[in-house]
Amino acid sequence: MLVVMKHGASRAEIDRVVAVIEEMGYSARPMPGAQRTAVGLVGNDGRVSSSQLQALSGVAQVIHVTQPYKQVSREWRPENTVVTIAPGVSFGGDAAPVVAGPCSVESEQQIVAAAVAVRDAGASALRGGAFKPRSSPYSFQGMGKAGLELLALAKRETGLAIVTEAMDDEGAHLVAEVADCIQIGARNMQNYSLLKTVGRIGKPVLLKRGMAATIHDLLLSAEYILAEGNGQVILCERGVRSFDTATRNMLDLSAIPTVHDLSHLPIVADPSHGTGHRDKVGPMARAALAAGADGLLIEVHPEPDRALSDGVQSLYPEQFAALMEELRGVATAVGREIPQHAGTTHI
Amino acid sequence: MLVVMKHGASRAEIDRVVAVIEEMGYSARPMPGAQRTAVGLVGNDGRVSSSQLQALSGVAQVIHVTQPYKQVSREWRPENTVVTIAPGVSFGGDAAPVVAGPCSVESEQQIVAAAVAVRDAGASALRGGAFKPRSSPYSFQGMGKAGLELLALAKRETGLAIVTEAMDDEGAHLVAEVADCIQIGARNMQNYSLLKTVGRIGKPVLLKRGMAATIHDLLLSAEYILAEGNGQVILCERGVRSFDTATRNMLDLSAIPTVHDLSHLPIVADPSHGTGHRDKVGPMARAALAAGADGLLIEVHPEPDRALSDGVQSLYPEQFAALMEELRGVATAVGREIPQHAGTTHI
Amino acid sequence: MLVVMKHGASRAEIDRVVAVIEEMGYSARPMPGAQRTAVGLVGNDGRVSSSQLQALSGVAQVIHVTQPYKQVSREWRPENTVVTIAPGVSFGGDAAPVVAGPCSVESEQQIVAAAVAVRDAGASALRGGAFKPRSSPYSFQGMGKAGLELLALAKRETGLAIVTEAMDDEGAHLVAEVADCIQIGARNMQNYSLLKTVGRIGKPVLLKRGMAATIHDLLLSAEYILAEGNGQVILCERGVRSFDTATRNMLDLSAIPTVHDLSHLPIVADPSHGTGHRDKVGPMARAALAAGADGLLIEVHPEPDRALSDGVQSLYPEQFAALMEELRGVATAVGREIPQHAGTTHI
Amino acid sequence: MLVVMKHGASRAEIDRVVAVIEEMGYSARPMPGAQRTAVGLVGNDGRVSSSQLQALSGVAQVIHVTQPYKQVSREWRPENTVVTIAPGVSFGGDAAPVVAGPCSVESEQQIVAAAVAVRDAGASALRGGAFKPRSSPYSFQGMGKAGLELLALAKRETGLAIVTEAMDDEGAHLVAEVADCIQIGARNMQNYSLLKTVGRIGKPVLLKRGMAATIHDLLLSAEYILAEGNGQVILCERGVRSFDTATRNMLDLSAIPTVHDLSHLPIVADPSHGTGHRDKVGPMARAALAAGADGLLIEVHPEPDRALSDGVQSLYPEQFAALMEELRGVATAVGREIPQHAGTTHI
Repeated sequence: MLVVMKHGASRAEIDRVVAVIEEMGYSARPMPGAQRTAVGLVGNDGRVSSSQLQALSGVAQVIHVTQPYKQVSREWRPENTVVTIAPGVSFGGDAAPVVAGPCSVESEQQIVAAAVAVRDAGASALRGGAFKPRSSPYSFQGMGKAGLELLALAKRETGLAIVTEAMDDEGAHLVAEVADCIQIGARNMQNYSLLKTVGRIGKPVLLKRGMAATIHDLLLSAEYILAEGNGQVILCERGVRSFDTATRNMLDLSAIPTVHDLSHLPIVADPSHGTGHRDKVGPMARAALAAGADGLLIEVHPEPDRALSDGVQSLYPEQFAALMEELRGVATAVGREIPQHAGTTHI
Repeated sequence: MLVVMKHGASRAEIDRVVAVIEEMGYSARPMPGAQRTAVGLVGNDGRVSSSQLQALSGVAQVIHVTQPYKQVSREWRPENTVVTIAPGVSFGGDAAPVVAGPCSVESEQQIVAAAVAVRDAGASALRGGAFKPRSSPYSFQGMGKAGLELLALAKRETGLAIVTEAMDDEGAHLVAEVADCIQIGARNMQNYSLLKTVGRIGKPVLLKRGMAATIHDLLLSAEYILAEGNGQVILCERGVRSFDTATRNMLDLSAIPTVHDLSHLPIVADPSHGTGHRDKVGPMARAALAAGADGLLIEVHPEPDRALSDGVQSLYPEQFAALMEELRGVATAVGREIPQHAGTTHI
Repeated sequence: MLVVMKHGASRAEIDRVVAVIEEMGYSARPMPGAQRTAVGLVGNDGRVSSSQLQALSGVAQVIHVTQPYKQVSREWRPENTVVTIAPGVSFGGDAAPVVAGPCSVESEQQIVAAAVAVRDAGASALRGGAFKPRSSPYSFQGMGKAGLELLALAKRETGLAIVTEAMDDEGAHLVAEVADCIQIGARNMQNYSLLKTVGRIGKPVLLKRGMAATIHDLLLSAEYILAEGNGQVILCERGVRSFDTATRNMLDLSAIPTVHDLSHLPIVADPSHGTGHRDKVGPMARAALAAGADGLLIEVHPEPDRALSDGVQSLYPEQFAALMEELRGVATAVGREIPQHAGTTHI
Repeated sequence: MLVVMKHGASRAEIDRVVAVIEEMGYSARPMPGAQRTAVGLVGNDGRVSSSQLQALSGVAQVIHVTQPYKQVSREWRPENTVVTIAPGVSFGGDAAPVVAGPCSVESEQQIVAAAVAVRDAGASALRGGAFKPRSSPYSFQGMGKAGLELLALAKRETGLAIVTEAMDDEGAHLVAEVADCIQIGARNMQNYSLLKTVGRIGKPVLLKRGMAATIHDLLLSAEYILAEGNGQVILCERGVRSFDTATRNMLDLSAIPTVHDLSHLPIVADPSHGTGHRDKVGPMARAALAAGADGLLIEVHPEPDRALSDGVQSLYPEQFAALMEELRGVATAVGREIPQHAGTTHI
């Protein structure tokens, strides 16, 4: 940590900064410059609060040299973490599994049709929301527990692993009974009570980046889960808010190499929410894979025209099957592979 | 709602849109244009989901003419809502009360000293967090229930109303026992489970705008609370995320006239979180009041240099007292007043 | 400047950084830490390019402690610069002059009517574009030289100073013949050829902040003008691009105290472009003044319904007169005053 | 265009909107709804200014159904435009050429070494700035005319086409003598005088997206060039400004399918400026190609450690050669090819 003093800070102000750093149990190293003095804090273990230092008289700025996260960092653990949510469905290794399915579970017929379609095209896991966070209280909020039961049924029918969202503590425990991986949505990325709960439950967690979250914020939220003893975290880039309304969100694919640089955790991409338009899902899914994504989340609905939510960004089953073909080609070109589900009918 | 067809959409595609609108129970009004056809949906009661329409073949875009929120809108209720959190502490009328105090409750001595100082300077309510959402799991997370007890003590000592944050369902019930107004923080603005809980509790709620929330998002989140039967909602602008790191957030004061135009709910501003720097709190507090804010939230700490959180943006008690003087002048200039707390020693 | 090494950087990599800094003519001060080493560059005169250092092996990050601008900084010149564009029209002192008028010069009748109206209400200068940067090539592009002649006529009729925009080198010389202050628009804030030209012309310049410009970018663009020997620069906050479409731009009033902190140059605000809606101009004009703005730019049109550009954000003359009354009250409350134009009929 | 009236707009206000539309020469089609009336404007040829309508009493909002650009749109021209800047170097067809080279021309030795290296690795054109827009007036501003002469020399030595930036009218004419394609940088995307100049010069133009430009803004800027009769425009995504400082800009790859949907013009990507870090250039170059980019711009320097600008984002020649191998694989996987330069030594 570097405490930059104002131009013209007095000797007494600099001495006070040094004293406070030493009171905190660290070493202080003043560094007089041509225009101003900076004081280095040495021995930072990542837990120093800059608040007290920033508040001191004569201080212009406090610069963090050490990142405030620990266990999620690649410096803490150099090799990739591989998160296995079900037999043969691992994120962070050579394979890049595809999680596909509808936005919401709507009926037995719909979810089973979706599950069969995505399995046959080569998906490894089924997504589908039973609890849905919706901007409006008047929109469809999901089927709740009944939806979870239908996901369990679809799993039995197809053998696909299940990834589904939890919105609160009570829901997290219900979801954990059925799902192979608990999804935390973008709106709850900084719902710390919920992060602690899923940290304690101990099942794999798919943590989506918030709409205005920096990569550092995302890693700090993951740190909440790891700090509870659960290291099975998959990060997910799903688009951030931007000034351009041409797409629903701005899918920030540079998050993929950035996370790979800073952290050992796997990161997947969700081009469906990232673009909001069916026609852009294919190009951005291919791009995410080429950028190094450790997997993909793709919305597929047996009848997008009749979907209760997100129909406009859901692929038709035949579009998804064609996209999977393309993705296998891109994966090969970048030294990855799309794993084949044991039960898939794809040749 | 207006469904804009693609240039070159076929007659059959237009007919299908008309048919779907009629199946949904509304009237369809096709409007052929020079370059493309648009189909108006008439009879929209604010609950139409555009998802099915956007997903239809030949549709370029669905434009919302009617807002998806209802009870929070000024069209629903033309006159201002006045939210009274304690006797003499009302938001939305001529008075613009000031809520002040430290970021976190840290000790009995600290919170009582802060309460006395802000009351004496003319604040109407005390703020101070017992449950603190922090980006890092290693930062101070608040004193919890013990903090709530100290807030209750400070209230008894000073007569100030209490505004404090709840982060989850369990915490909301605890906070409701002590607080006059439950604060929902920016990170939880779209934690819909929590919004429903505070809607059902029925106490006044101060709802902070999320870091990437549009005004429409903020109003939709408030709608969740009103939809549970609780109309006592105060909105709060506290800065949004921007590309400029010169301030901690970008305080969007245009939110004030925008909310006043669209909604009957009161809106206050938090220039402390909105700027993140003590020196900018004064100018932005004056500006917020001049823009029409219905109140202010200001961080004040008896000893900012020793604060466990947000010291750098907390005012010294004497700075706060001087600012209150300035604010009274600005309030008068714009036809408002800063209410005097019954127990204040200010002349 | 601080060069932060990667965790695990080798001794040789650190030595290379030291050697390169010394080759550049500065002193290097290595600072080994608990997790990584940082190397301070001492003697930075604000002209060090970080590019060579960032590119060295083992370097994680280069942190700028010294700002890259010089002459615009308050450290260079502690006292406020007062820019006088015409007798009695000064920005940066106690007075906060108002520049008002239509978006575009449209006709003799229109510009004279506007000039008389704004002068009578107390404006000190007339704004109005002869050269208009428009997003679409098919929108009205301004009257060009004929518009400049009409501005000169309006000046003779009313005695108001003239502020009008230049879009290129040739236009800058034409504008300089008529205007008291040359405006550089937001889209040209980083048109460095144009900045150098107006720097050399030597007339006062009103430099608008670009739509995605940080305060540092704005100050660096001003530095281009000062570096040519022209210190008569007025900065202007006019809103930045944001994710919220509720207003045309997001007027960042915290730019005002931030600029006052970092620079000696005056800063004014343009609430008309900053909001894009007539109804929000008044609240935000009052707010800007309360935040400490050194002046205001306000669009006023004699007949907004018939304006060729920006009618929706232009005030009616009577609205402007009423707003000026309010502004005088706010100015008094914050220790400023709205100067009276010599020829004004306002009491 | 759709004029949405306020809830409670009077019959007279609606009639006035209808009358103004008819005065403008279009047809008006009122559409009364459950909550408010909308009035459709029929016959819009893309040149209607909404300003007069927005300014009318009782109008809540004006919604653009027709885009304001014409000649750049895919509706104007359904088939792709192929822009050929030199024999065998075409953008918009099956091939995706790579333009590579240093940020700035620094010396004969440097630019020739760079040109030979990128040609040998398979690039089709050489980039390198002679005129450099730099945020600070104290940074290296380019070699100017001498730099252009060195680019001409490098072209003679290697046969590569030249792409280089012009910053003003005078420079555009100088650049046009040497370059095969004139680059307009992000900071000048809305410098309309310069856009008109390069429109009239008639050489191919590479137009970079501004840092806060929407896709619509980018297309409107291209429209300025086409409106002067020059249809040879290549668009370039190079990252936009965002709240996350983890990368220099946020490379918005969804711009690629969005432009392909809305326009017939080719679009390339610049992952060097888009990320600002050498290590992220490879992943994002692969991703851009997979997303459908019609070409790439990549910074390569023979000695990045000694570069006068942008060294940190420049690839070493051997990194670039390895990346070109990867790109050929990705291109094949998505049905494109990286063209081989006639003089390349690559097998």
